[in-house]
Amino acid sequence: MVSIKKIYLDFEKHLEKTIKIKGWVSNLRGNLKIKFLDLNDGSTVENLQIVLKENDINLELVDKARLGAAVEVEGILKESKTSKQKVELEAKKFNLLKNTDEDFPIQKKEISREALREIPHLRHRTKLLKTIMLIRSTLTFEVHNFFNENGFLNMAAPIITSNDGEGSGEMFIVDDESEKHFFGKVAKLGVTGQLHAEAYAVGLNKVYTFAPIFRAENSHTKKHAAEFWMIEPEVAFYDLQKIIKLADQLLKYVIKNTLKKNKSEFKFLESTISPGIIEKLSSFISSPVNIIEYKDAIEILKKERDVFEEKNIYFGMDLATEHERYLAENVFNAPVCVINYPKGIKAFYMFLNPDNETVASFDMLVPGIGELIGGSQRENDYQKLVQRIKELNIPQDEMQWYLDLRRFGDAGSSGFGVGFERLIMFVTGIDNIRDTIPFPRTTNNLKT
Amino acid sequence: MVSIKKIYLDFEKHLEKTIKIKGWVSNLRGNLKIKFLDLNDGSTVENLQIVLKENDINLELVDKARLGAAVEVEGILKESKTSKQKVELEAKKFNLLKNTDEDFPIQKKEISREALREIPHLRHRTKLLKTIMLIRSTLTFEVHNFFNENGFLNMAAPIITSNDGEGSGEMFIVDDESEKHFFGKVAKLGVTGQLHAEAYAVGLNKVYTFAPIFRAENSHTKKHAAEFWMIEPEVAFYDLQKIIKLADQLLKYVIKNTLKKNKSEFKFLESTISPGIIEKLSSFISSPVNIIEYKDAIEILKKERDVFEEKNIYFGMDLATEHERYLAENVFNAPVCVINYPKGIKAFYMFLNPDNETVASFDMLVPGIGELIGGSQRENDYQKLVQRIKELNIPQDEMQWYLDLRRFGDAGSSGFGVGFERLIMFVTGIDNIRDTIPFPRTTNNLKT
Repeated sequence: MVSIKKIYLDFEKHLEKTIKIKGWVSNLRGNLKIKFLDLNDGSTVENLQIVLKENDINLELVDKARLGAAVEVEGILKESKTSKQKVELEAKKFNLLKNTDEDFPIQKKEISREALREIPHLRHRTKLLKTIMLIRSTLTFEVHNFFNENGFLNMAAPIITSNDGEGSGEMFIVDDESEKHFFGKVAKLGVTGQLHAEAYAVGLNKVYTFAPIFRAENSHTKKHAAEFWMIEPEVAFYDLQKIIKLADQLLKYVIKNTLKKNKSEFKFLESTISPGIIEKLSSFISSPVNIIEYKDAIEILKKERDVFEEKNIYFGMDLATEHERYLAENVFNAPVCVINYPKGIKAFYMFLNPDNETVASFDMLVPGIGELIGGSQRENDYQKLVQRIKELNIPQDEMQWYLDLRRFGDAGSSGFGVGFERLIMFVTGIDNIRDTIPFPRTTNNLKT
Repeated sequence: MVSIKKIYLDFEKHLEKTIKIKGWVSNLRGNLKIKFLDLNDGSTVENLQIVLKENDINLELVDKARLGAAVEVEGILKESKTSKQKVELEAKKFNLLKNTDEDFPIQKKEISREALREIPHLRHRTKLLKTIMLIRSTLTFEVHNFFNENGFLNMAAPIITSNDGEGSGEMFIVDDESEKHFFGKVAKLGVTGQLHAEAYAVGLNKVYTFAPIFRAENSHTKKHAAEFWMIEPEVAFYDLQKIIKLADQLLKYVIKNTLKKNKSEFKFLESTISPGIIEKLSSFISSPVNIIEYKDAIEILKKERDVFEEKNIYFGMDLATEHERYLAENVFNAPVCVINYPKGIKAFYMFLNPDNETVASFDMLVPGIGELIGGSQRENDYQKLVQRIKELNIPQDEMQWYLDLRRFGDAGSSGFGVGFERLIMFVTGIDNIRDTIPFPRTTNNLKT
């Protein structure tokens, strides 16, 4: 059975041929002699127009099909006489496979995105959410493609862990229902796969994880979720410069290929929530990466302090989202990597620069969101690492396996993490992370 | 920088060229005038032999490099004079990047797989675990490839859920450290992505998930883990026959391509833990799928009851692993799909056959393991489903969203789940699931 996506990709091949197709009713109009049914089969946001005539089809049965009903149609693909679509299917057979009850919530009247979040099991049947999920799927595949083409090994970092990770937020506790401690000790949901990926980079060289990550932060912003997916490559022998180059290549590769593969979906975004998105992304993929020292970024922000809520700008501060966005939106009008942050605001494992004050880290900030990627070169001096975790009161025994990597042939590595849902926000222009993942999990929000 | 894998794939291209390579010392031998260093860079289980001569290289420095040390070598690729390897690198420069401490546990003396499980952050640096993880990575990529080529949408089912899933085992409870109930209700780690994938199949047609899954079963077998990855496709409009065909195609596709891409790794398996593995897999991918009715399988097992520990064989029983393995190993000597199980031993959502006694389900059983895949056509009659969950005392309110799918254009779908680590066991011949995933989680086992 050919999909609607494939028909549109090469419609001349299918012209005047008999096509059998199953899908769901997006729209239905017409009169007693002829009906026009817009059919969607999930392969693309675009519908195929089905023309049903009373000579060939029992139009009373067609009339029974409500929006969202599953139908099967067989017919001949014809060039369309109207300019709205190139082709249409002239139906010879029609079958109502399964109707919708009358309270099916996805109707012609637009539903707010807030209201759609109450029905996460149905909202992908709107054009907007379908578009985002189709793009999400392509991005997923292109991420794996990129790493495969570049000789990376995919690895599964554990989700359940006894480590505190990077200390980058509250963690969820895991236990079995018997509360007998299944694992014999406190278990948590991982906030990163990085530490385990570092272990694999020593010996396997170029590795990446792409898996769900959890943070129990009681956050109500548009860009935080308690469960999200993260892409985390780790490369032995790489320094900061090389890993920034890799991040830039990854983003450009996946965006370029997704633009190509989801033309209809980007057209839909252009005409609805994200006018200019194609131009914005095309300009990004053809521009060199912007890099700025943290200390220089601070100087710029100081001069503009009047525009911020947080006006106390100083070397050593963590940038707030407003500062990050200002750099990306107003200073560079494009993604920008801020490098060499002060060690005090970054994780213990980052490589200490010779200035003894900053670490070889980078955050990639993008318009509309702020931080999209965070990464660094890792400290591979055993003694320096031990000293750093003592300073930060991290219990050494739980981290000994990680520290030991440095005693066993670890010549240094670098890596980064891309928040996958934030990448989807950046690529689609949608402004809320809850609309980028099928079943979002946030504070007090656990439907389905 | 070219990888060792690429050098071996096309060594003639690189002959007499200067090559710069970084990796880890696998072996070192020689005398005061010449050293032979086996270098591994993680791209393949095969090493590249580096020849270091006293005229070109400071052999005292080379001598300092212990097994596992990170080194950098520049040299000229030459045809080898011995028959053991095709090429070798004649070193012109050598750099010891990072040595190992003397207590590095991976030495020439073989370590038992049990002992290696105590050092999951280091064991991928043995040939066996490296081989398995390289094959795991290829299988991962080929799974995505298969679904992408066949027009499937990748979706992220939620990990944290309020559902009980298929009732297929104990679940982990999730909460934040404050114990204030982050989600405002009891949250669990998902045992399947299927129910959510079903929601997406209505409207998006062909979807799949590939994600971690959790079971809090206090199980000590070689084929159970508390955290593992599952591949779960769900296809609208598919019946049992079609979904079995898809499962068969998926397996054959990923195995065929992995055999091609990991020749060196399969050669290593042949010569160590799995003699005959290539022939076994090749025979599988060129044979048609075996299918047997559950009731016929019971008749066969009854006749052979003497060979089993559980001798009470009757229609309505759940098959134990010994029965499953007997069917695959002794009756078919190949993977076999057992279909149409009695409804009493299967999940509530499976399609009730016209006999009112069996459901349209299948388990694919494979030699050495037993169940590798479980799947079914789903019941899409709302009333029948409601009746079934009442019979089983499943609380209806938590499942209402799932039941509602049947009221909103769900013309039926089918799907299955492949335990990914069991697939790795089948493909590599390794007999313990703990050796198929980098950092295994089982009862009382939470290292790192």
